Amino acid sequence: MNPIRVTQFGLGPIGQACVKVLLQKPGLELVGGIDVDPQKVGQDIGEVCGLDQSLGMAVRGDGAAALADWRPQVVVHTTFSFLDHIEEQLATIIRAGAHIVSSSEELFYPFQRDPEFCQRIDALAKQHGVAVIGTGVNPGFSMDILPLCLTGVCTEVSKIVATRVVDTGQRRLPLQKKTGAGLSRQEFEERLAAGRFGHIGLRESALAVMDTLGWPVDEIEESIRPVIAETEMTTAFLTVEPQQVAGLRQIMRVKSGGQERLVLDLQISVGAKEPHDRVEIIGDPPFSMRIEGGIFGRTATIAALVNTIPKIINAPPGLRTMMELPVPHAFGR
Amino acid sequence: MNPIRVTQFGLGPIGQACVKVLLQKPGLELVGGIDVDPQKVGQDIGEVCGLDQSLGMAVRGDGAAALADWRPQVVVHTTFSFLDHIEEQLATIIRAGAHIVSSSEELFYPFQRDPEFCQRIDALAKQHGVAVIGTGVNPGFSMDILPLCLTGVCTEVSKIVATRVVDTGQRRLPLQKKTGAGLSRQEFEERLAAGRFGHIGLRESALAVMDTLGWPVDEIEESIRPVIAETEMTTAFLTVEPQQVAGLRQIMRVKSGGQERLVLDLQISVGAKEPHDRVEIIGDPPFSMRIEGGIFGRTATIAALVNTIPKIINAPPGLRTMMELPVPHAFGR
Repeated sequence: MNPIRVTQFGLGPIGQACVKVLLQKPGLELVGGIDVDPQKVGQDIGEVCGLDQSLGMAVRGDGAAALADWRPQVVVHTTFSFLDHIEEQLATIIRAGAHIVSSSEELFYPFQRDPEFCQRIDALAKQHGVAVIGTGVNPGFSMDILPLCLTGVCTEVSKIVATRVVDTGQRRLPLQKKTGAGLSRQEFEERLAAGRFGHIGLRESALAVMDTLGWPVDEIEESIRPVIAETEMTTAFLTVEPQQVAGLRQIMRVKSGGQERLVLDLQISVGAKEPHDRVEIIGDPPFSMRIEGGIFGRTATIAALVNTIPKIINAPPGLRTMMELPVPHAFGR
Repeated sequence: MNPIRVTQFGLGPIGQACVKVLLQKPGLELVGGIDVDPQKVGQDIGEVCGLDQSLGMAVRGDGAAALADWRPQVVVHTTFSFLDHIEEQLATIIRAGAHIVSSSEELFYPFQRDPEFCQRIDALAKQHGVAVIGTGVNPGFSMDILPLCLTGVCTEVSKIVATRVVDTGQRRLPLQKKTGAGLSRQEFEERLAAGRFGHIGLRESALAVMDTLGWPVDEIEESIRPVIAETEMTTAFLTVEPQQVAGLRQIMRVKSGGQERLVLDLQISVGAKEPHDRVEIIGDPPFSMRIEGGIFGRTATIAALVNTIPKIINAPPGLRTMMELPVPHAFGR
């Protein structure tokens, strides 16, 4: 079998890590990398990704022309979180005839947020015979696909509670910053009021679970509050003083038929105690799953993207979701 | 949308419990029950299943004629574990034009055990435009679909260890008997030597995981040994004396490329300590999932069967596996 030709679109930290994994996977062939950063364009992809070796391929910034030259079957897309920021990029890739696996959190389940976007992308993808999907660890796994999969052995489910606690102390600076580490309480509240702050995709996870289980949504209540440091904490990148923000806790509660049926409870903060992933199913049978230490999010997101490549090429054309694809799994080696 | 017409084939304890769940699910309509037991044939299905109400449908023993009358879209098949015992039943159902969801453990992944059986069933199913699948909790979930799903967030996996400990003390007599409870050591060894003893389907789980991950199987080593009671234990059905068999421990170790890469470790015994399900992924990221108390197997198997109904009607015709269907999940209410 010929390897699947894959282009990496977006060479930030996640995209760079994707390149490393793509190079290791049997059955995949990296055919180019795209980024708009003028500092990266023209550089060898291997160098940009911090590899020891040159890959003999320069990063290009001219998406459409580069894709026309490389003709990838799949593009791994890791640029922005928000639908309005990615639509033009997605359209360019679709017109080049490539399937898309994207880390855009809003793309995981975009139907309620922007139905017109969905219609446009779905129609364009069908016109060009390609499939488009958003995935990652969260959204994409911990608070949606994994809980859903667990309900597969339940004759009935009355409520699901998914909890994820992430200690960002060992993680990258962007994640620490995105979750408010080092801000004052007031700065946190200002950022929150300005919008598009906090973990992106929790609403997408919630809607995906509700819709897939066939539970009509009466009401969604979302809260984001700061996790305040009690003691000074220092990471490789910053110091959080006592009474400063260490991170955030974001909770989504969804009601259906007058009952609270889904709770997604996410804490991401420097020094978070007892990091873990947990899913509690209140149903028949009732049970509770726990992953002590939690799933390391960065690697998990890269894995979710790469592991979806062999599945997306067999998916029907259009805008797809992870709920439609076969059970996810690793491949190779 | 019209409800999916479902017939229950096999009205033993699992089949009876399926009927109860089928009746509760929106979107499903029970259209008859089949069993060969002359004590059941002619009785009302509601009575046979221990319901309070009559369903106005008599159990029939004449499979082909009954199916021709009822014209179900899906048959839930819960009769035997072994391929050679079910082939004729499957063929009858396929010829009646119904999709099949079966609890037969060997049908979960039958390709290595009996390739000719697979060819025959696959060809017949394609000829009649229906899909055939085997599922349940084990095989079907705890030691195959769930571990596979967890690897979906791994960039690489070097080894998987899945453990399931089931305390049969609160379970039905057939499960206690099937796992040797109350036998002497010698009787246990004799049963083992006679063959077809022990948990059915562990090999199927192992092969499904190996093949799906693309790991060639060098060597499979399976051991079954008795769990010996240290003290007297009494269940609702039997008493296990000290030094008698309380149940069994069955371990499957699979090597690929000279390395042990998959271990399935199953203990099913009266009084088993700390029942649980556990999956350890040695990979990147490494993590370990635990379900304290374990997933209650009987309900989980019924759920796996019923939850597969809405998926099998959309599957391509032929002999299918749970790895090909979308992520499993509950539905309704």
